[in-house]
Amino acid sequence: MGGALLSETLSEILIPVAAVIGIGFSLLQWLLVSRVKVGPEKASSRNNGVYNEFLLDEADEEGTDVRNAVPKCAEIQNAISLGATSFLFTQYKYLGIFTVCFGLLIFLFLGSVEGFSTNQQPCNYDTAKMCKPALANALFSTIAFVLGAFTSVLSGYLGMKIATYANARTTLEARKSVGKAFITAFRSGAVMGFLLAANGLLVLYITINIFKLYYGDDWEGLFEAITGYGLGGSSMALFGRVGGGIYTKAADVGADLVGKIEQNIPEDDPRNPAVIADNVGDNVGDIAGMGSDLFGSYAEASCAALVVASISSFGNNHDFTAMCYPLLISSMGIVICLITTLFATDLFEIKAVKDIEPTLKRQLIISTVLMTVGIAIVSFIGLPSTFTIYNFGAEKVVKSWHLFFCVAVGLWAGLVIGYTTEYYTSNAYSPVQEVAQSCKTGAATNVIFGLALGYKSVIIPIFAIASAIFVSFSLAAMYGIAVAALGMLSTIATGLAIDAYGPISDNAGGIAEMAGFSHKIRERTDALDAAGNTTAAIGKGFAIGSAALVSLALFGAFVSRAAISKVDVLTPKVFIGLLVGAMLPYWFSAMTMKSVGSAALKMVEEVRRQFRDIPGLMEGTAKPDYATCVKISTDASLREMIPPGALVMLTPLIVGTLFGVETLSGVLAGALVSGVQVAISASNTGGAWDNAKKYIEAGASKAARELGPKGSDAHKAAVIGDTIGDPLKDTSGPSLNILIKLMAVESLVFAPFFATHGGLLFKI
Amino acid sequence: MGGALLSETLSEILIPVAAVIGIGFSLLQWLLVSRVKVGPEKASSRNNGVYNEFLLDEADEEGTDVRNAVPKCAEIQNAISLGATSFLFTQYKYLGIFTVCFGLLIFLFLGSVEGFSTNQQPCNYDTAKMCKPALANALFSTIAFVLGAFTSVLSGYLGMKIATYANARTTLEARKSVGKAFITAFRSGAVMGFLLAANGLLVLYITINIFKLYYGDDWEGLFEAITGYGLGGSSMALFGRVGGGIYTKAADVGADLVGKIEQNIPEDDPRNPAVIADNVGDNVGDIAGMGSDLFGSYAEASCAALVVASISSFGNNHDFTAMCYPLLISSMGIVICLITTLFATDLFEIKAVKDIEPTLKRQLIISTVLMTVGIAIVSFIGLPSTFTIYNFGAEKVVKSWHLFFCVAVGLWAGLVIGYTTEYYTSNAYSPVQEVAQSCKTGAATNVIFGLALGYKSVIIPIFAIASAIFVSFSLAAMYGIAVAALGMLSTIATGLAIDAYGPISDNAGGIAEMAGFSHKIRERTDALDAAGNTTAAIGKGFAIGSAALVSLALFGAFVSRAAISKVDVLTPKVFIGLLVGAMLPYWFSAMTMKSVGSAALKMVEEVRRQFRDIPGLMEGTAKPDYATCVKISTDASLREMIPPGALVMLTPLIVGTLFGVETLSGVLAGALVSGVQVAISASNTGGAWDNAKKYIEAGASKAARELGPKGSDAHKAAVIGDTIGDPLKDTSGPSLNILIKLMAVESLVFAPFFATHGGLLFKI
Repeated sequence: MGGALLSETLSEILIPVAAVIGIGFSLLQWLLVSRVKVGPEKASSRNNGVYNEFLLDEADEEGTDVRNAVPKCAEIQNAISLGATSFLFTQYKYLGIFTVCFGLLIFLFLGSVEGFSTNQQPCNYDTAKMCKPALANALFSTIAFVLGAFTSVLSGYLGMKIATYANARTTLEARKSVGKAFITAFRSGAVMGFLLAANGLLVLYITINIFKLYYGDDWEGLFEAITGYGLGGSSMALFGRVGGGIYTKAADVGADLVGKIEQNIPEDDPRNPAVIADNVGDNVGDIAGMGSDLFGSYAEASCAALVVASISSFGNNHDFTAMCYPLLISSMGIVICLITTLFATDLFEIKAVKDIEPTLKRQLIISTVLMTVGIAIVSFIGLPSTFTIYNFGAEKVVKSWHLFFCVAVGLWAGLVIGYTTEYYTSNAYSPVQEVAQSCKTGAATNVIFGLALGYKSVIIPIFAIASAIFVSFSLAAMYGIAVAALGMLSTIATGLAIDAYGPISDNAGGIAEMAGFSHKIRERTDALDAAGNTTAAIGKGFAIGSAALVSLALFGAFVSRAAISKVDVLTPKVFIGLLVGAMLPYWFSAMTMKSVGSAALKMVEEVRRQFRDIPGLMEGTAKPDYATCVKISTDASLREMIPPGALVMLTPLIVGTLFGVETLSGVLAGALVSGVQVAISASNTGGAWDNAKKYIEAGASKAARELGPKGSDAHKAAVIGDTIGDPLKDTSGPSLNILIKLMAVESLVFAPFFATHGGLLFKI
Repeated sequence: MGGALLSETLSEILIPVAAVIGIGFSLLQWLLVSRVKVGPEKASSRNNGVYNEFLLDEADEEGTDVRNAVPKCAEIQNAISLGATSFLFTQYKYLGIFTVCFGLLIFLFLGSVEGFSTNQQPCNYDTAKMCKPALANALFSTIAFVLGAFTSVLSGYLGMKIATYANARTTLEARKSVGKAFITAFRSGAVMGFLLAANGLLVLYITINIFKLYYGDDWEGLFEAITGYGLGGSSMALFGRVGGGIYTKAADVGADLVGKIEQNIPEDDPRNPAVIADNVGDNVGDIAGMGSDLFGSYAEASCAALVVASISSFGNNHDFTAMCYPLLISSMGIVICLITTLFATDLFEIKAVKDIEPTLKRQLIISTVLMTVGIAIVSFIGLPSTFTIYNFGAEKVVKSWHLFFCVAVGLWAGLVIGYTTEYYTSNAYSPVQEVAQSCKTGAATNVIFGLALGYKSVIIPIFAIASAIFVSFSLAAMYGIAVAALGMLSTIATGLAIDAYGPISDNAGGIAEMAGFSHKIRERTDALDAAGNTTAAIGKGFAIGSAALVSLALFGAFVSRAAISKVDVLTPKVFIGLLVGAMLPYWFSAMTMKSVGSAALKMVEEVRRQFRDIPGLMEGTAKPDYATCVKISTDASLREMIPPGALVMLTPLIVGTLFGVETLSGVLAGALVSGVQVAISASNTGGAWDNAKKYIEAGASKAARELGPKGSDAHKAAVIGDTIGDPLKDTSGPSLNILIKLMAVESLVFAPFFATHGGLLFKI
């Protein structure tokens, strides 16, 4: 079997070094973004020669309103940033209370496994040895949970901060050129991507090393406690995604329904009272929510791999380097993504609008190709040439190159999912164009074609995920699945960079409109935004694909830990679990969709009221009352995130406690296989509708111009589709991947309790 | 163990007697319906005193146009009947070719199991005994397949015949009173219900007895061959449902989009060129398709129960009465439904519109309560007090009262599903009213609320199905599930009667509009139709619920037959099957939705063209060209039914042959747990939108009147929702239950082949 080429000391050094490089690179990008000055002093700095070369072609056009527009830009940015910060802090208060309560619950449930005894117990994997008591597991799981929650919240918060810092700067740079604006938005996305990836790695690494001081050689206990980190990360992500999703879409739908459809004013028009809430929503939903979400996936994938590895020969032989293979992959990922970023920011330059989408897509390919090499290196130096994995009771001998294939298949499956998503949601291809064409006969056919497109878009991703599962499972059992998930997430820094780029550009467009910049600038930000819509859909594809793999890995770890050797569909306990589990995504979506619908109705009434009651609002002589709309979104979001959150958090606890681990296994598998489909189809349907609308608005081809212009019947039908798609693509869809992985990680954390005290109903 | 109280001879007599009673009752109802005269002579028969008492209150109103309207009524009925017959015969030509080809495939695949040897082989259940050769199984399975296909087609055809016979008669009776019209529509539904239930039973009974002449004591072989009957029934149902669904919805959507939205003419206006196609569609889709569908469920549930029973102690002890328990349940069902029907037709009388829905719902309760007693009787006299069931290798001792509970839990779960469906789709309750209210803010919120409603409506049915599965599985393993499915279908005659009543009333309304009857009559037929919408949704609920149970039972039988003892989710082969299986309903829905969408677009163009090119069409002075619209629907339906049909028919063959029985098991389980959710939510969303529209149109409450009248913005939004719902509730939704059960029964029929030659890819 032998050890890894890489020595333990060296891997102990390399991991934190990679994390620190990531953080450093992120700060460097922040510094570069901060060079763009926002605020009144900007007007003078324009004349110091640095930017003059870019401004030549627009100088006269801008001369007219720039003195007003630039300070207004700063003002709006400030309002958005304040709104987002204030919402997040209110949300964090609730989440703080939740974290304390749920932490206590974890401690009590896990502590009760051995009746809060402080005595050492025989180990699970080797009853001749003594392991740490369940009480220690309870305590450290709780600590890990709190740390995970904190890091998740921090990831979301920092993402929001940089996004609201960058939006106005992107607008200002758009005056110079589309390339400059792109670089600003993209760099800001990179800040978020690298901060999140590096932070997640660093905190996890430090936690493991501190826990090791207590656990010593009891690695099974150590990594079991570490899974609390994943649970903490994902539970924050759930509330972040759901709360943020409801916030942003209530504002967006409400703003569109009155503004665009009834009052015929453009998107992001400052006269629309819901416009600030809409822009705040982009930052708390699409940025903070997504940051927490992907951090959760990353933390869970790492935890799943670690906990499975802890009972493999890595754990038994105490081979620390091999044990840290998941962390080494992530470290390599940071370095690879750093190189990849340079391709977009320094090596190539964007000269025209048409370069944007290819540049973003090139990022995906470059990072995937480079990372494949990176994985090969890590697998070669970080793993012994052969080792043993436990596969539900049986042993399985695995070679190091097997693991290379597992990680690589996950990575490439991610690319396939990304490209499929792009094909189905970008208006450069026929599926979205067909949906746009169907607007000719009205909203009904638009919706029918859009739903059909979403359903169809599920096929290839599912085959990609299935292939990844089959290959990695066959090669290295559940450990293979876990590292395949990590493979898909290994380029997370790049993925997040292009994902966060979307809402930043969206906000930049909003600010351009509100500050009253020229039409030309708005066109540039719109082009950035259209590319962002597609990359957002790609990001969601990644999030869902990785969530599927992560959940399966967690599910496998749960089954191992719960000491059941099979999950047989042909037993009634499992089958009813499967059926009910497959239903949960629907229940959850029903709640979130209705929450958005109800909140949007309230928003519509408020916006209508303001247009009716505030004299001079339509004429632009009076200011709308933005704060009331912000309050409607905030209240709706905080109130409505609780029921779906409770559904997800309580289901594993109730099922595990009352029906036992077999039924819970069924529920997890059912929710996984059904939730993936609902999530992918919802995201893609929504993305397609959004881009079908943009296709008509842009009128770039003859066919598109025949449908337009803005305000035509076909365009109105497209707007209806876009509005329906909002909650699908930004609330229910992306929350569902959290549902499936959160239930899995929660089951894993509580597995010792369920194994001992679960299945009360059947015991009676 | 002992035998059943009922002697073999007596059960041999009772079953056909029940079937003959059912057929006789059905013919009696037909006779009663035929008393209503349609055609020119009707005008004189009105004056012979029989009906005069009912006509008093309307005599003057009708006096104006009755001379024209009555013959026109006959003419339209004739056109609809001709259109439906001609479509069905064209479809049957294709189905005939399919039946021959697929029958050949069955013969070749099953014959190849033992290399077409004509020698007897050792039995599966007891290798000391000799059983019939695989070649015999191949031959008899093929015969059973053809018989099932024929009976299915016959059920659909007869249903269509009576429906097109009854529609104009219902219109004419509506002149007298709503009660008279109701009775006519309901009796006609009963004709279909009883014919189908009795025919299905009789053909199955005769087939078993004829096959027994060859098989003798080899009951395992006998009932394995009989499963071909279920496959034949369901494969016809698939094409019937999909083809009919595309036909009817292409016409309906096309007619609505131009007629209601663009030209502002009422539904079913004779000036609309697609109106005949729409009415033909109701009969070929909702009637013939649904008839085939429920016949398929019935045949499959019986086959699943029989094949499981054949390897239980019933089969081993050659206890024919106990073996025939499923048939005895169905026989009892016919008698119970007969009594139930009398409650609606003779014991109570409908005096006002508000009585219609309660009367239909009362049918469900009465039949369920009476049938519970009926099941108790059959279980008491038809079963030995204890017996043994094989449960994937293990033996399970079951008591007769256990089986009573299994059947009863299926029956009552059906009622729960029916009532939940009613709650979510009837506009008498808050869910649909909320959807209607959301139309105030436009089509987008209507769609968001409607989708959320559909998702939510899944919860209770899934718990009902899960409970039924848990109880029946725990009591009597897979046999329990099979008889629970039969329990749900035992009141099929009543279920079909109230289900078929819907499209008949819908057609009656159409004929009233087209023939130019007074507004008052149209109001009555509308009231009948609104109740029909809800009962149609209930019927779909039953169809889906029973399909879930039937598929699970077939799945269990397949697993037994394929000689695998467990389906472990934790093996990659099974898991990828599960994931891909859960995707199939999406793939399938994508195809059917898009087919309807594309066909509707063509229909829209044709209808627009006719309004543009035919002078005097809008003014009513020129006749539209109905035939072209019928042709568009026919062509689209025949062409587009092939890809989804191929997906369903080929998946089990490809997966079984290439990947083997474990992956196929995963696919079946995945398709089942995911398909049920998609089907229920699609049907209920569509039903809710339809009734939300009707709620606004009827304006029965203050809240409803505020949304109306017809043509208001809210009403337009509701019409868009209704149009989107059409393919969901009448094409994809109801086809999905055929998908899940058809794949299961096909797998079961081909199980011997897969067990021997399957899994080619893994063998290489």
